[in-house]
Amino acid sequence: MKIVRFSRNGQTEYGIIEDDLIYPCKGDPFIGLVRTPHALAAGSVRLLAPVSPPNIICLGLNYKKHADEVGIAYPPEPLLFLKPTTSVCGPDDPIVLPDAFQDGIDFEAELVIVIGKRVKNITEDEVPDAILGYTVGNDVSNRTAQWKDGQWARGKSHDTFCPLGPAIETDLDADNVDIACRVDGKVMQSSNTSNMVFPCRRIVAYLSQCMTLLPGTVIMTGTPEGVGYKRTPPIFLKAGQTVECSVQGIGTLTNPVAGRQSP
Amino acid sequence: MKIVRFSRNGQTEYGIIEDDLIYPCKGDPFIGLVRTPHALAAGSVRLLAPVSPPNIICLGLNYKKHADEVGIAYPPEPLLFLKPTTSVCGPDDPIVLPDAFQDGIDFEAELVIVIGKRVKNITEDEVPDAILGYTVGNDVSNRTAQWKDGQWARGKSHDTFCPLGPAIETDLDADNVDIACRVDGKVMQSSNTSNMVFPCRRIVAYLSQCMTLLPGTVIMTGTPEGVGYKRTPPIFLKAGQTVECSVQGIGTLTNPVAGRQSP
Repeated sequence: MKIVRFSRNGQTEYGIIEDDLIYPCKGDPFIGLVRTPHALAAGSVRLLAPVSPPNIICLGLNYKKHADEVGIAYPPEPLLFLKPTTSVCGPDDPIVLPDAFQDGIDFEAELVIVIGKRVKNITEDEVPDAILGYTVGNDVSNRTAQWKDGQWARGKSHDTFCPLGPAIETDLDADNVDIACRVDGKVMQSSNTSNMVFPCRRIVAYLSQCMTLLPGTVIMTGTPEGVGYKRTPPIFLKAGQTVECSVQGIGTLTNPVAGRQSP
Repeated sequence: MKIVRFSRNGQTEYGIIEDDLIYPCKGDPFIGLVRTPHALAAGSVRLLAPVSPPNIICLGLNYKKHADEVGIAYPPEPLLFLKPTTSVCGPDDPIVLPDAFQDGIDFEAELVIVIGKRVKNITEDEVPDAILGYTVGNDVSNRTAQWKDGQWARGKSHDTFCPLGPAIETDLDADNVDIACRVDGKVMQSSNTSNMVFPCRRIVAYLSQCMTLLPGTVIMTGTPEGVGYKRTPPIFLKAGQTVECSVQGIGTLTNPVAGRQSP
């Protein structure tokens, strides 16, 4: 099942997508969705990020070849960092280059776990029941700030630096799906989630030992090799470009890149 | 004015404290508080964290003597990290030592800014109007995880690792108040916010260049020298102890320390 979130008449609603139709639903995916019979054409509403997360937990260096290209040994345990909720944007929303950082902004296609229920201290066997589904994310990164600070928080925290969508797929073999990133149609990242150092079950069980995971919590599972800043010469996002992040079985998250906003 | 948040009959309410009485209020501090006439004795209700933040932004190494004791040059710009919302607890709530980390848990008394309105890209002159007030926080830290990971997120993210309270003081000279931490009555940290590397106005203006600050956003402004892990021998929190963090003009945030919770 594919769940979307959209805006209609100033209200936020959830819907289920089938055959390019959106069936608006009552309720929400955490208490339960009740499908209504009157479908909308998929292109007739503006999709939002499919979840409004209470927290966004991210993994660093979770694909071996990405750790290799960065030149850092991949970690013995999942390596965490956080993004603020204000960084979230939805499908087709612009990724806005910050005023002070028109250069050095990079893409990172990621498989994203959406937690379905409040959990703490769960085992790997209990993880599937805790996961609502999976979506696609782009962990947009300001490399200048990230490396200058050492701590990654600032470089990962700008508004619009966490595009999510287009849908939450509740039925996915998350351990074996293709993942890719294209900039203006050119393939920049192409891998498969079977290359993750820590698979989703291990990630969620590990995080649940550290903290309570609330319904709607978003877990970004790390990016594969091919990021822009490690290329020769480096490739960074420019205003006017379009970034597409895809995960097989979920769909493609498309975002244009916008430049300086201030006058 | 001192604003508190408390639980009564299963409902969360705001109140204003005057002369050891709490005047329950309608509304909230962000849309406006309307005081009701029937006061409660201050000890008759359970205080909660005075705000339920959408994001928790923290500064590292923002007191020169703390940077000195850690052996790191203090940063040329504010150094950010984030805590998840699930780490928040209130006055008198236990700080729970994580099952796997009964040792190595440290205290960090901090002055905490509470943002009052949605702001982005504001100047230092505009900051006072954006701040609702100030409370006291304890940036409880798992030093083992913090140094093992390099990224500080995991070590700062455990449940109960962000005690906040007891009140939000809306009238405070934040640039010149004493700040202290006591463990079982013994003074571990004692400084003044005039020793901060970046004062509150600079911090908020800087953060607002990076991201949108929503009403209720909590900004932890860093801790002074005296943390436990840099002492010889190191001092870490133990089950049964009591931690008191105080900021002059706001009050004292008191939390007991609890040990292993799992059977």
